Amino acid sequence: MKSDLERILERENIDVVWIVGAATHNPAMTYFTGNVHVSQADLILRRGKQPVIFCNSMEREEAAASGCEVIVTAKYQFQKVLKESGGDLLLTSAKVHKMMFEELGITSGRVAIYGKKEVGVVFGVIKELEKLLPGVQFLGESQDSVLLEARATKDREEIEHIRKMGRITTEVVGKTAALLQNSQVNQDEILLNAAGAPLTVGEVKNLINLWLAERGAENPEGTIFAIGRDAGVPHNTGNPDDPIRLGRTIIYDIFPCETGGGYFFDFTRTWCLGYAPEAEAKVYADVKYVYDTIMGELEMGQEAPFFQDRTCELFEERGHPTIRQNSQLESGYVHSLGHGLGLDVHERPWFSKRGRQADRLAAGSVVTIEPGLYYPEKGLGCRLEDTVWVRPDGEMEILADYPYDLVLPMKNWHK
Amino acid sequence: MKSDLERILERENIDVVWIVGAATHNPAMTYFTGNVHVSQADLILRRGKQPVIFCNSMEREEAAASGCEVIVTAKYQFQKVLKESGGDLLLTSAKVHKMMFEELGITSGRVAIYGKKEVGVVFGVIKELEKLLPGVQFLGESQDSVLLEARATKDREEIEHIRKMGRITTEVVGKTAALLQNSQVNQDEILLNAAGAPLTVGEVKNLINLWLAERGAENPEGTIFAIGRDAGVPHNTGNPDDPIRLGRTIIYDIFPCETGGGYFFDFTRTWCLGYAPEAEAKVYADVKYVYDTIMGELEMGQEAPFFQDRTCELFEERGHPTIRQNSQLESGYVHSLGHGLGLDVHERPWFSKRGRQADRLAAGSVVTIEPGLYYPEKGLGCRLEDTVWVRPDGEMEILADYPYDLVLPMKNWHK
Repeated sequence: MKSDLERILERENIDVVWIVGAATHNPAMTYFTGNVHVSQADLILRRGKQPVIFCNSMEREEAAASGCEVIVTAKYQFQKVLKESGGDLLLTSAKVHKMMFEELGITSGRVAIYGKKEVGVVFGVIKELEKLLPGVQFLGESQDSVLLEARATKDREEIEHIRKMGRITTEVVGKTAALLQNSQVNQDEILLNAAGAPLTVGEVKNLINLWLAERGAENPEGTIFAIGRDAGVPHNTGNPDDPIRLGRTIIYDIFPCETGGGYFFDFTRTWCLGYAPEAEAKVYADVKYVYDTIMGELEMGQEAPFFQDRTCELFEERGHPTIRQNSQLESGYVHSLGHGLGLDVHERPWFSKRGRQADRLAAGSVVTIEPGLYYPEKGLGCRLEDTVWVRPDGEMEILADYPYDLVLPMKNWHK
Repeated sequence: MKSDLERILERENIDVVWIVGAATHNPAMTYFTGNVHVSQADLILRRGKQPVIFCNSMEREEAAASGCEVIVTAKYQFQKVLKESGGDLLLTSAKVHKMMFEELGITSGRVAIYGKKEVGVVFGVIKELEKLLPGVQFLGESQDSVLLEARATKDREEIEHIRKMGRITTEVVGKTAALLQNSQVNQDEILLNAAGAPLTVGEVKNLINLWLAERGAENPEGTIFAIGRDAGVPHNTGNPDDPIRLGRTIIYDIFPCETGGGYFFDFTRTWCLGYAPEAEAKVYADVKYVYDTIMGELEMGQEAPFFQDRTCELFEERGHPTIRQNSQLESGYVHSLGHGLGLDVHERPWFSKRGRQADRLAAGSVVTIEPGLYYPEKGLGCRLEDTVWVRPDGEMEILADYPYDLVLPMKNWHK
């Protein structure tokens, strides 16, 4: 949680956190600013002090709405410095940043860098800045970084943001199910739209976007709505031109966030419309069995990767190849059990590597649990996913309930 | 244009372009992949060769839909390398990248880095990679970089993407105008919604999002809908709780892109509902005069910054302070005349600095023209903006036409 950050910075001997980029769609920045519209800023957090935002004059009021102290960068006279620097943009930007750091009294120490931005620009500026501020050590950060460690557990306010996104997500999933179940079906078992033409994956996705927008959400990373063989490739998002047929597995994986970039939700169901053939039903049953078993075994304090191992074990017992046997596997259980979720759709705790404190299921962790099986050569795939909050009392709470049924009966079709 | 890239790389003596990040909302990557769903990849373009995408196995089919050659990274056995590297994630990532570069025969030369991603992670990997590949020079890039130079002019296919976004944008603006003009008005000159409560900026913005989503567009950077005093601060996006009143300037600046991150459009009108007081009408008249004058003077081959100077001159002649007199100005003409537009809402040509070839209005340039005046202390602001294509025949074509009227008459209200 944010309240852990000071302690983590001290432990890692980091003096300053420097975050670059916009306040929208930039989790590190949004963590401190909330949902304000600032297109370009530097946020500097000195250990033990409140964060300060540097931005241009036009965005000063939006930046101030974050509650942070704001310093307008016009005072550093970019154009004048640019002229003095012979028109060298990277050098000019580095000189302006030097003034910003000096303004806050930062001339030495260890500075950790964050933010989502054009990496080439930032890399170029830091290389110049390292020469201008030789006392400062700029630290590249891995996905284990101090900020992601703090973000790995959520406070109550963050949980309410995620819960709200869960409610929006399951409402949209319910509307999608109703659309499909109410559709007419032709003699080739293809769903028809209101105009009598085949209903396509693209049409369904457009409606999903619309229903999300109506509810103050967006899906910047898209939605997976993949049928049959496409469902057999985990991140295949589905071909927009494909018609929707009865009796094929549809993997519907939806991971929207608050409009402007905020908290995410992540949710998957697998559906067969009208009926499920034997192979599809068998794969679903195995995934549901593993899902239920793992959900019953989740335990606060245990490492997340422990449950990935356990998932592999359970699938192997049922005759499925798994990724722990072969890291290049493309048929069977081919991915990780889940991931942390918050301002990023994928964040800590990670399920991939044992032995790290911040990858335990702790009070305040929010993780997805999403076992799946993929057989592209058989034209099918199946995944079930919920977003789970590890409550301070140790209970595992699914943040949005929704039925797990594989078969969705059609209103206007019977076998 | 993309066809210029080889020539620019050769001129700048750059051997390799390396792009990191997702294919969505990542202009450098999208420039080569188009709109595919790949959440994490490395695209490597060697001069004189076709680009190659490295991605994980789950996303191999989406990556291949780009038309690029795809190499699945599972072959580099991340987990095995991680163990050999004592669990050091940055070092492991650097070692895997070394294998990728070596696979393409890159062991020396100058590599330019692009892509929108967490900068700390990339900075950390490059620092390790510089040690592992000592023959390679990794180059930080400024906003003048080779890729942005190529992207500064657009081919016909790109123009059609932008034109389509212009059509969507003006449709949504038209719907917004109709909503406002058809609203009931109370005795305090405040617009009412269907429920009889004051219509708020937040409600209007939600509808704008909805109308964009219906049309396959999104606005990842938000929309400016700022009234009265807020309109006097150029990037104030408007307070969601504010009611909408007659007779105040509303700056409506909308800059959506294709869903998933693609080509943008950028468009602004300033409206007064019902009537315009004298001060508002005067400021509008001056902005419209400057807009018309500049539009008439735009000329292929001329530097974009020339027109920023000319805009300042025109505003000064009419008694307004301008940013060329004072870089910290907050009242008057306080920003730049415009910017290039494409996969980024702001890109080359830049209007800020003289003397550079790629900041000329060239055949295929797409620029915004957006003069404005801001007087927050008087509670008003005004900006007019269109997106303009410099056609190969030298004509300036506005890519979406829309009326410029300041006053929108109300259907149910008369003074």
